[in-house]
Amino acid sequence: MTAVRARSETLTATELEAVDALWRAANYLSAGQIYLMANALLREPLRPEHVKPRLLGHWGTSPGLNFVYAHLNRAILTHDFDALFVTGPGHGGPALLANTWLEGTYTEAWPEVTRNAEGMEELFRQFSFPGGVPSHVAPQVPGSIHEGGELGYSLAHAYGAAFDNPGLVVACVIGDGEAETGPLATSWHANKFLDPRRDGAVLPILHLNGYKIANPTVLARIPHAELDALLRGYGYTPHYVEGHEPAEMHQAMAATLDAVLGEIRAAKQSGHRPSWPMIVLRSPKGWTGPSVVDGVPVEGTWRAHQVPLSGVRQNPGHLRQLEAWLRSYRPEELFDDEGRPTAQVTALIPAGVRRMGASPHANGGLVLQPLSLPDPEEHAVAVPRPGGTSAEPTRVLGRYLREVFAANADKANFRLFGPDETASNRLDAVYEVTGKAWQAGIEPVDEHLEAGGRVLEVLSEHLCQGWLEGYLLSGRHGLFSCYEAFVHIVDSMLNQHVKWLKVHRGIPWRRPVASLNYLLTSHVWRQDHNGFSHQDPGFVDHVANKSAEVVRVYLPPDANTLLHVMHHCLRSRDYVNVVVAGKNDTPNWLDGEQAALHCARGAGIWEWAGSHHDRPPDVVLGCAGDAPTIEVLAAAELLRELLPELAVRVVNVVDLMRLQPEVEHPHGMGDREFDALFTPDRPVIFAYHGYPWLIHRLAYRRTNHHNFHVRGYTENGTTTTPFDMLVLNRMDRFQLVIDVIDRVPGLAATAGVVRQRMTEARERHSRWIRRHGEDLPEIRDWAWTGER
Amino acid sequence: MTAVRARSETLTATELEAVDALWRAANYLSAGQIYLMANALLREPLRPEHVKPRLLGHWGTSPGLNFVYAHLNRAILTHDFDALFVTGPGHGGPALLANTWLEGTYTEAWPEVTRNAEGMEELFRQFSFPGGVPSHVAPQVPGSIHEGGELGYSLAHAYGAAFDNPGLVVACVIGDGEAETGPLATSWHANKFLDPRRDGAVLPILHLNGYKIANPTVLARIPHAELDALLRGYGYTPHYVEGHEPAEMHQAMAATLDAVLGEIRAAKQSGHRPSWPMIVLRSPKGWTGPSVVDGVPVEGTWRAHQVPLSGVRQNPGHLRQLEAWLRSYRPEELFDDEGRPTAQVTALIPAGVRRMGASPHANGGLVLQPLSLPDPEEHAVAVPRPGGTSAEPTRVLGRYLREVFAANADKANFRLFGPDETASNRLDAVYEVTGKAWQAGIEPVDEHLEAGGRVLEVLSEHLCQGWLEGYLLSGRHGLFSCYEAFVHIVDSMLNQHVKWLKVHRGIPWRRPVASLNYLLTSHVWRQDHNGFSHQDPGFVDHVANKSAEVVRVYLPPDANTLLHVMHHCLRSRDYVNVVVAGKNDTPNWLDGEQAALHCARGAGIWEWAGSHHDRPPDVVLGCAGDAPTIEVLAAAELLRELLPELAVRVVNVVDLMRLQPEVEHPHGMGDREFDALFTPDRPVIFAYHGYPWLIHRLAYRRTNHHNFHVRGYTENGTTTTPFDMLVLNRMDRFQLVIDVIDRVPGLAATAGVVRQRMTEARERHSRWIRRHGEDLPEIRDWAWTGER
Repeated sequence: MTAVRARSETLTATELEAVDALWRAANYLSAGQIYLMANALLREPLRPEHVKPRLLGHWGTSPGLNFVYAHLNRAILTHDFDALFVTGPGHGGPALLANTWLEGTYTEAWPEVTRNAEGMEELFRQFSFPGGVPSHVAPQVPGSIHEGGELGYSLAHAYGAAFDNPGLVVACVIGDGEAETGPLATSWHANKFLDPRRDGAVLPILHLNGYKIANPTVLARIPHAELDALLRGYGYTPHYVEGHEPAEMHQAMAATLDAVLGEIRAAKQSGHRPSWPMIVLRSPKGWTGPSVVDGVPVEGTWRAHQVPLSGVRQNPGHLRQLEAWLRSYRPEELFDDEGRPTAQVTALIPAGVRRMGASPHANGGLVLQPLSLPDPEEHAVAVPRPGGTSAEPTRVLGRYLREVFAANADKANFRLFGPDETASNRLDAVYEVTGKAWQAGIEPVDEHLEAGGRVLEVLSEHLCQGWLEGYLLSGRHGLFSCYEAFVHIVDSMLNQHVKWLKVHRGIPWRRPVASLNYLLTSHVWRQDHNGFSHQDPGFVDHVANKSAEVVRVYLPPDANTLLHVMHHCLRSRDYVNVVVAGKNDTPNWLDGEQAALHCARGAGIWEWAGSHHDRPPDVVLGCAGDAPTIEVLAAAELLRELLPELAVRVVNVVDLMRLQPEVEHPHGMGDREFDALFTPDRPVIFAYHGYPWLIHRLAYRRTNHHNFHVRGYTENGTTTTPFDMLVLNRMDRFQLVIDVIDRVPGLAATAGVVRQRMTEARERHSRWIRRHGEDLPEIRDWAWTGER
Repeated sequence: MTAVRARSETLTATELEAVDALWRAANYLSAGQIYLMANALLREPLRPEHVKPRLLGHWGTSPGLNFVYAHLNRAILTHDFDALFVTGPGHGGPALLANTWLEGTYTEAWPEVTRNAEGMEELFRQFSFPGGVPSHVAPQVPGSIHEGGELGYSLAHAYGAAFDNPGLVVACVIGDGEAETGPLATSWHANKFLDPRRDGAVLPILHLNGYKIANPTVLARIPHAELDALLRGYGYTPHYVEGHEPAEMHQAMAATLDAVLGEIRAAKQSGHRPSWPMIVLRSPKGWTGPSVVDGVPVEGTWRAHQVPLSGVRQNPGHLRQLEAWLRSYRPEELFDDEGRPTAQVTALIPAGVRRMGASPHANGGLVLQPLSLPDPEEHAVAVPRPGGTSAEPTRVLGRYLREVFAANADKANFRLFGPDETASNRLDAVYEVTGKAWQAGIEPVDEHLEAGGRVLEVLSEHLCQGWLEGYLLSGRHGLFSCYEAFVHIVDSMLNQHVKWLKVHRGIPWRRPVASLNYLLTSHVWRQDHNGFSHQDPGFVDHVANKSAEVVRVYLPPDANTLLHVMHHCLRSRDYVNVVVAGKNDTPNWLDGEQAALHCARGAGIWEWAGSHHDRPPDVVLGCAGDAPTIEVLAAAELLRELLPELAVRVVNVVDLMRLQPEVEHPHGMGDREFDALFTPDRPVIFAYHGYPWLIHRLAYRRTNHHNFHVRGYTENGTTTTPFDMLVLNRMDRFQLVIDVIDRVPGLAATAGVVRQRMTEARERHSRWIRRHGEDLPEIRDWAWTGER
């Protein structure tokens, strides 16, 4: 146990008074935000009308956050380093608003909230007030890259920000409630992926204030020996700061911070993974707040979680107790006649960008350098005629990404994240120029592991997503490659990131950051090894519910379209781009130039695949996704052969949001354009990669929507062949021809023989595959000829 | 370090030979499933045509699983106890299929797969074969409650099965890949919630085989001291079984199992949380498989993950190597002339329900006792007239749940799960009859914590969900109460559970289990303290994509409907029921009897809320959810007052899947019934709790769909008042009246003044709230009068 008890020598008397004044000022401002809408400086006795009508916010965690912030300020001033503050207990919004107001960064961001009495009143009034600022740490707070609210991701965000920032110390406060979540529990292991030389340092500060909303926390209630073993087992050396008496706690915290900063310096010089220092801060929940209210203990219990005194306007006793509590901070010593923080309060606050609220790393667009991107044309595969060659799309992309790594090696601002799937997803060409970050043991048989590797592989989608978010919001670029089904593991993280971006886009001082790019592969149609548990194309549906200004979805049907889509995504800003693409050998339909044009349009008619372009089509075959595109083209070829008089149009959709009306999504098409593709009145058989209902949802306002007949994944899966999967979900070429016959008016009467042949083909396949375990030879041998 | 090295005295020579024979037999069968479609017993030299055309499956983890299974068999026989086997590395399907076939439970479940040569060939052929069985441990496998595939939930499932099963030992193999996931990382802490007396024991077996698909694992590559500290910090005493020489490993494993079973017995007698024993098994990946293939190491590396020899049909060298590998298990000693396992192989397999594949706990329906449920009428709130009283719906439900606990106390088969939100969600009446399970420290200030508590609260949605799944699949009942926004954290777990249930329902020997019931509250419209980060109603959309035969969604608008919906859900079987309900004070619309009828119908016309029932309506106001219902009723009242000639019909939907066609969902309505509610041709203004597109998706095939105009949550949120949230998302009563005016043909021309008043009311509200921080008095004071 490395416990630092109050060592009176660390802080001088003057420093002790200053750090305490800073802490008291922040505590005063935190409580003030929750309670006051007038009389902010308590220049007169507190009256009910000074108190907000709705008391909202979280007091419990705020004094602890203020304590850490004040001491980090002192440490930055003493040791002169760049620090970023990640607020795990993000519901302690009042604390971060208080501290950034005290250091001046809040007023720089929001000039109307001046750093004087008037501004203090506005700071109080706006908090958790309609039209004001949210109660949680949110993009509006300068210095923040971490949304408060859904807990679990602070430490992953902290590591993401530390990667490739060798001079940075990311201080990450972790609440003991958050520490119970799964994502946080595995985030401790991120130290096995952090290079002490190339990357910055993360300083976890586990705040044991003992309680959640209504329960004690696990880590606060296990024996000390267990807690200590757990943290050492995670690869950290814990330093304990425990108590409640302010002067002793100030000395202990200051001494501890000096010690851990020394250990961090030593670790970075050593160059190999140390047992990284961390701090365990054990202090009362609602520290310095009301001790007892209405006869029950509040300070140091879960009752301090939100608003410790709730009936202030109606209950004169509560009003008096509130006033006494606020005056206990001695505001008259902390703020001058104009309401500005006194020199003592600001004495330990660093200057300029050393202030944590001014860190450019927390406003990533300030430090963002555009990626140097190779020309996708240089990586395009040759396509002498549609379907004339084939390729594994992600393997082609891997070669492009290899060049992205090479071209930006000096900037050190691009990373690839994946849950142990980079090679499985066939992106392994990148290992020709970089390795996989690894700080644990390496054995002779291992391949591509290296301290300085730029690929991050860990079997945790939560860590991949959290690291990438932290990396992007601190001004870098990246790509998360994931099995399609399992990206649902981070559905809720996606929610929070989209919410962050939506708000961020409306804040003038927040500069654009690189988009969060997903490559979803090993998708639903190709789970040959894995089967039903690995089949879920619903992430796109989840994303489609999110703010239209933020989300983009692409379904490139082949290698060259994948190249162009990803090229576009890597240049984009402030979006979440979801790219769904296959890794299996797939026909190439478009050459590089055609692919560029098709991707720019997002959707278009593939004239070479249809027939009878001299007249309006009898039927439109729509497709989005690689497997659906193959089936639609096969169906088109069958129709050309078997029903040569039928006029067939093939429309391929790469950019799924094009299907929405322009008022719903920035990429949406106008109705005229939509009708020009899908006609106002002809049957549309649409083969879609995912759940078919999404196409209906996107297109339900269109003239011709009632004529849309969509095939897709209908949750019929198991371990079987790719073509059998199509048959099980009725999206195979034979079924599509049947759909055409059933939907084109009058055709059923004349094409009965063809329909019967198609039905027989489906049945023959089903019999064959159950006997031989392979697709029918005529399926395996099929190649689209494009000849008529 | 508690390392047990080979202690030759544990197993006699006979036992050693028997356990090794059992292990070799399982290994042989595991490899056979991946490779062979004929010549199963190698009675003739192996030829290419004996080998499957597609080689699929996961060899790497299988020998380790077989090793554990064999030794558990020996321990059960020696110590005579009930054991359940949870296969964390569920992709090791071949191992579990092999072991259940050897013990006879597979043949009992699937009589066509006989326990002889013919059945062995069928066992091999069907594996990962079209129309056969999946490659992962799935519901088809007797003895399993845990789907292989998506990793992370094994240990949570194991604890869920152990709760309230005092005689059971749940052996849970955890792969070192899975151990990197967040959910698994926090699942270790489940021991703080397990009562040694009342509950069973969980025996975690961390299998360090060192590699994932393409990478080493973190836990296999940290120093021993770190690993040991980590596991002790989690509250376990690790026992290490490490090596690769079979005889030594057998002795070590047997001795270790004897030791840990003794520790478990002692712990259960002590009655307080011990440092629970666990096993760390460090053995080579692909143990006993090909050591080197094509010149590169395979055994003991990631290359053994799936199919170690991949080109067997084409490559004569691989074919020879496969034959040598298979013959290395000496199948001629393991199977008799008829292909049945020899007496030596089966010597250590227990009998009857002691066989792990026959555990009734793994086929929960066998042990399921129906809940004794109170009559919801006894808890119904009085409703003299619609809107005449009000209640907090979840608080009313809490009183009902209290009686559920009381009525089933003797059966000990019901639990409530929540991420620290039971009290916040106002279900705290349950604490009158039970407490919160807690095995960590208790302090005087704490409330309701007790070892035997039946409420499980931990700040991890993953743990809540995983525990509940394990509890249900082992034959008990439960309810998961969760903040609506954060239930997305378990989106992917829901996917896997629905997939499990879908398959389970089609397996004749799997008996129905209790449904997984969600109560989603603290919902999107009432995040007064928390704001944007806590606003997401999209879980319903996610669920709606899943198999219709499994999922049900309910939106009870008030207290009595909530009671009846939950009463129904607690009696149902094999479903996932999602119930979205408010916790805030809400008008009561229906008395108990009316609520029962309305819930049984799922959707209906509320005649008392509409007007002019003597003629067809001019407009239909639809609603689903508590906040939308209030607004629709307020809009109806405004319309009655302001446009008294208008015929208005109000339709409330409780059972959302009623909106789908009957061919899409078992609860779906026929078109005639739908038209009878919503008319074939009148405008429908529908106010929906969540994202509005879902209503379009459910109703897009209906005659009148083009007349549907849906309001809902459109991702416009912040910390503000409940009514302001409605205004921001344009679902407030004034907007709904405007929508009616804009949609009813001809009305815009005559109702211009009313429309203007509504617009002004919205603007007045927006101005007022930004000044006063409270809703307009006329909103706060509004109560639905129901009088005309």
